[in-house]
Amino acid sequence: MKNIKIKVPATIANLVCGFDILGMAINEPYDEMELRLLESPDIIIRHTDSFNLPEEASKNVAGAVLLKIQTHLNLKNGFEVIIHKNIKPGSGLGSSAASAAGAAFAANHLLGNVLSKEEMVHFAMFGEELASGVRHADNIAPCMYGGIALIKSSDPIDIIPLNTPDLFIAAVHPQVEVKTSDARQILKKNISMKDAIQQWGNIAGLIAGIEKNDLTLIGRSLNDGIVEPVRSILIPQFHEIKTKSLELGALGGGISGSGPSVFMVTEKEEKAHEIARMMKAVYDEIKIESFVYVSEINPSGIEIIE
Amino acid sequence: MKNIKIKVPATIANLVCGFDILGMAINEPYDEMELRLLESPDIIIRHTDSFNLPEEASKNVAGAVLLKIQTHLNLKNGFEVIIHKNIKPGSGLGSSAASAAGAAFAANHLLGNVLSKEEMVHFAMFGEELASGVRHADNIAPCMYGGIALIKSSDPIDIIPLNTPDLFIAAVHPQVEVKTSDARQILKKNISMKDAIQQWGNIAGLIAGIEKNDLTLIGRSLNDGIVEPVRSILIPQFHEIKTKSLELGALGGGISGSGPSVFMVTEKEEKAHEIARMMKAVYDEIKIESFVYVSEINPSGIEIIE
Repeated sequence: MKNIKIKVPATIANLVCGFDILGMAINEPYDEMELRLLESPDIIIRHTDSFNLPEEASKNVAGAVLLKIQTHLNLKNGFEVIIHKNIKPGSGLGSSAASAAGAAFAANHLLGNVLSKEEMVHFAMFGEELASGVRHADNIAPCMYGGIALIKSSDPIDIIPLNTPDLFIAAVHPQVEVKTSDARQILKKNISMKDAIQQWGNIAGLIAGIEKNDLTLIGRSLNDGIVEPVRSILIPQFHEIKTKSLELGALGGGISGSGPSVFMVTEKEEKAHEIARMMKAVYDEIKIESFVYVSEINPSGIEIIE
Repeated sequence: MKNIKIKVPATIANLVCGFDILGMAINEPYDEMELRLLESPDIIIRHTDSFNLPEEASKNVAGAVLLKIQTHLNLKNGFEVIIHKNIKPGSGLGSSAASAAGAAFAANHLLGNVLSKEEMVHFAMFGEELASGVRHADNIAPCMYGGIALIKSSDPIDIIPLNTPDLFIAAVHPQVEVKTSDARQILKKNISMKDAIQQWGNIAGLIAGIEKNDLTLIGRSLNDGIVEPVRSILIPQFHEIKTKSLELGALGGGISGSGPSVFMVTEKEEKAHEIARMMKAVYDEIKIESFVYVSEINPSGIEIIE
């Protein structure tokens, strides 16, 4: 009986000025998933966590991906899946992407690596569609490739893995709900040319900084004059957290995905811990429960444990 | 008597999706400039070319730059300048930037390198202001630094020299006038978020391609859905030239600066020559005189000859 156990990283999409095109895998938090190839065509999903996610295959993110792969490859086999989820659903840290990418990756491994990475991304995107209604690869790509991934296009899939700069990440997940649909709806439909030019100056600087491992260039490129001013109003104490992080020496940061998690990048690990403590204290102060994570960039994506 | 002779490269600003932020120096065409430090405070400008550019210091691009430097440094000296201009004014190939950057560079050298590169760019921008009314560094930066330069910001000056990929450039300058002011006025004031996201995906891909020397990535990132569709209507046969260039194997290309010159990049030198011949033939056909240039990227900017 073939089986596999994998570790699937959380991901930060919409990397500040890289809205809709840049995502980054981080070491903490991460999910674990076990997949077993079945003789029967059943797709059985079990969650060991307490998030009450649906376990019916067609309604489960991992299940939806496996169903698509099963159909596409005309498989007689099915899969049994056990998901140990640590990436909280709705955190903005790529929880659904982890299940989707993990399912595609593990199934492909069990089937003898019949799919390319692009194909795995393609199938995993059906999981994102189930979770959020949008077939995007912003979290799936970095989850699958590791490091920082440029999603130049989702259709056709054109993913460019970038260099992994020597950064540490502090992230906080306050226990408030930001609906992805609200976060989408609040966005402007049109922007001024002036703002757009500033944004592409920043994204160009960010990519150059990432490729050159120039951390100060990364820092001074992490500005977003378009999405952050609008979306940050959905996140309590966003500006306080950002201001205090920069005061403590963060290079920059912003909203993770569509929120509510907020992340900051630093040059030194100790600074990231200091910022994480501050983040927690800010939410403790206003009695919002929060979870903080300090992490390096995950350089290689999904990892086989067994 | 101290004097210097320099070679100043042409430059291509607004590198397709890199509107207002990316410029590239090329080997052909180029100006030559001779500067001599004078005991007297006079600023004497002479042109050996036949472009009828003003020679009164305050009305001449090089002169305006030298006047600013003279005032800023409280100089008792003046300069005599002889300009052998080959980069045609109004070509969109950085003719005024060459005079401005050349003047700042040569003066600084004669004065014993008292200015930083950023300061030279700062002073050269006054020449651009005289020429076009706008203090921009899109041409000055690549002229001064060589290669491809990211102008992340002009105020404060934040220039990031990028890697020099192994490209060849074919450029054509049709003898039609495109006023920079018209080219500016025709631009949209607002753009859709959707177009903006596509543009920053392309600019991100372009920067990654440049840094990785990934020529096919550069090629598939050289798309501009915002400025080119509007500005190209000012350039006769733009679409014919672009289509035929791509058919002949160009990686991509677009409008140089605000036109009317058009450039294409290729992987092989022979392809660039082939494309240049086609460009000339297209304009010959409709009886528009044109000049074509085939060149590599100029990697180091302004060069001292004597």
